[in-house]
Amino acid sequence: MDPSMFIGKNGKDTISFGSGQPDLPPPEGAFRCLDGYRDFKYGLIQGEENLREQLTHEFDGADADNFVVTNGASEALDLTFRSLGPGNLLIHKPYYYSYPHLARFGGLEPRFTETVDGRIDEDDFELKVQGCKAVLINSPSNPTGRIQKIKTLKFIEKICHDLGVTIVSDEVYKDMIYERENYMLSGDRVVTINSFSKTFSMCGYRVGYLYSNDKTFVKDVIGMKTHTSMNTSIVGQQMALEALKVDRKHVRDQTKIWKSRRDLIYKGLTDMGLEVNKPEGAFYVLPKVPEPEKTVRELYEKHKVITYLGDWFGAPGTIRLSYALDEDKIVDGLGKIEKYLDGAHPKKGQILH
Amino acid sequence: MDPSMFIGKNGKDTISFGSGQPDLPPPEGAFRCLDGYRDFKYGLIQGEENLREQLTHEFDGADADNFVVTNGASEALDLTFRSLGPGNLLIHKPYYYSYPHLARFGGLEPRFTETVDGRIDEDDFELKVQGCKAVLINSPSNPTGRIQKIKTLKFIEKICHDLGVTIVSDEVYKDMIYERENYMLSGDRVVTINSFSKTFSMCGYRVGYLYSNDKTFVKDVIGMKTHTSMNTSIVGQQMALEALKVDRKHVRDQTKIWKSRRDLIYKGLTDMGLEVNKPEGAFYVLPKVPEPEKTVRELYEKHKVITYLGDWFGAPGTIRLSYALDEDKIVDGLGKIEKYLDGAHPKKGQILH
Repeated sequence: MDPSMFIGKNGKDTISFGSGQPDLPPPEGAFRCLDGYRDFKYGLIQGEENLREQLTHEFDGADADNFVVTNGASEALDLTFRSLGPGNLLIHKPYYYSYPHLARFGGLEPRFTETVDGRIDEDDFELKVQGCKAVLINSPSNPTGRIQKIKTLKFIEKICHDLGVTIVSDEVYKDMIYERENYMLSGDRVVTINSFSKTFSMCGYRVGYLYSNDKTFVKDVIGMKTHTSMNTSIVGQQMALEALKVDRKHVRDQTKIWKSRRDLIYKGLTDMGLEVNKPEGAFYVLPKVPEPEKTVRELYEKHKVITYLGDWFGAPGTIRLSYALDEDKIVDGLGKIEKYLDGAHPKKGQILH
Repeated sequence: MDPSMFIGKNGKDTISFGSGQPDLPPPEGAFRCLDGYRDFKYGLIQGEENLREQLTHEFDGADADNFVVTNGASEALDLTFRSLGPGNLLIHKPYYYSYPHLARFGGLEPRFTETVDGRIDEDDFELKVQGCKAVLINSPSNPTGRIQKIKTLKFIEKICHDLGVTIVSDEVYKDMIYERENYMLSGDRVVTINSFSKTFSMCGYRVGYLYSNDKTFVKDVIGMKTHTSMNTSIVGQQMALEALKVDRKHVRDQTKIWKSRRDLIYKGLTDMGLEVNKPEGAFYVLPKVPEPEKTVRELYEKHKVITYLGDWFGAPGTIRLSYALDEDKIVDGLGKIEKYLDGAHPKKGQILH
């Protein structure tokens, strides 16, 4: 079983808590540049100057040379790991399912540190980070929706600085935090990964970027991208620029919707008696369920409800639900999950504890 | 010195024989889908079904499952090599300058076979292909513009089939051949690389693809792309689909223009007394010049004429000229090159022979 089992299966009667992409549309302003668009030549490998210039407003003390615009956060991570490898990469569990693959593709060997209720355990982190070339931090996290404490993030900044370890900080959900402002990890050896996919609902356009203060690293990445994919789509970059110029109220308004859905799904799952950490950002939740593999399969086969298996994210005993769908559908889907679990595990309270 | 020395240097007074991209625009029909375009969700990793379905008309006996749509031919090559590696990759000289880099990034060790007047030497090929995992064929060639004899291509098909060696055939210039129809390399172990960049002038959109009869290989590539970049830009794919639907007369008409420019630049260079193979496809020409490094530098510094150094393509003693520019500019640029060479090398005829 892997997520590809659900590809093309999202029919009209299906309720999908599967794929992690916003159902809410991009800001209308992002589309306006398409009318009459006629550019067609290669862009700069590093990314268009005007887009990188606009991005400097998102980072203290940045200049346009600190950025590389990429085919989504995926390519930003891939280029980062390929430029960093070989060596060990420390990843906190549960993790976005591509991380270990990307690490290995780049010649990095993944090591893992456990979390407690989705929070990094500083002692375990300190132990495991020894001898690593880099660590990968993802707060808010896909698949838990949990954020790391600012105290922990500062601890990670210090220890990695002292050890000369690179921090790769995947902050693609930074604009979807419900509990506090984002704390952006920073330092000489920090590579920040971001994207227009989640904040601006532009998943299909594949525009992401990386930011680093280390201009030698940035140059290495550009040197690689020159051969591996050349510039990122010029029209996608133009749309990304227009999206950045739209009043940020658009993002804040969408975040309110995400938060309301978060409240709804969290209450629904806890009311069922499931053990689950409250998501604080992103749009994922990772409840514990009995027999997760059977649950994922039967929920789909018997009730046309798509969920993802926690094992894919290094989280056995759980399933992942994305709540990027209408509240009506969330309620409907939760009802079906409850009915299924009650039928399959009448004494689920006892099984779970 | 490398090609990046000319990035952003293409001012109004500059005549650039540098970057290899069409100056002629895409078919107008490719842009029409942009008006009112509002899709934004992830596409299929393998590429949109309707685009792959349309591509089947370009390959005998193909079905949509044989294709993966990629971020330009660059990513198609990168994913191919990463999926094939480790092992040896045979490349014919002179070569597109990214090939040895992409090979090494993918864990393949490049080996080289020499060509005679841009034609593969079958004896040398037969010798060098032993122990290789794959060979990379590029006909028409960047940087020579030469095509391989059909007899040679069939020889390569046979020997690679017998040895179990994969053929990676980069045919991005297949629609720009002036001397005969394209002969598409085919077989069970052939991976064909193509793109919308040259045929449809869509360089900036980064839409390419690979085709293979080996569905296990196709699945491996999709498995990798799932993590490294996900789907190719949905709007770029829509434009590519529209471009494919445009009457192919558009491409034939553009090829007439390329051919006329080819005649012009070839005559100009031979009239100067330079030794050069006549290009038969693509839009490059690779004349021998004395002191090529100094020539490239001084042509730019003193005359604002951009040319590329043959060394970047494994062709010492030469410079590469792309003739993807107006005939007026070609004439103007050739005049400046002649004047420069006459001044720098009054007896250039003797130096060359």
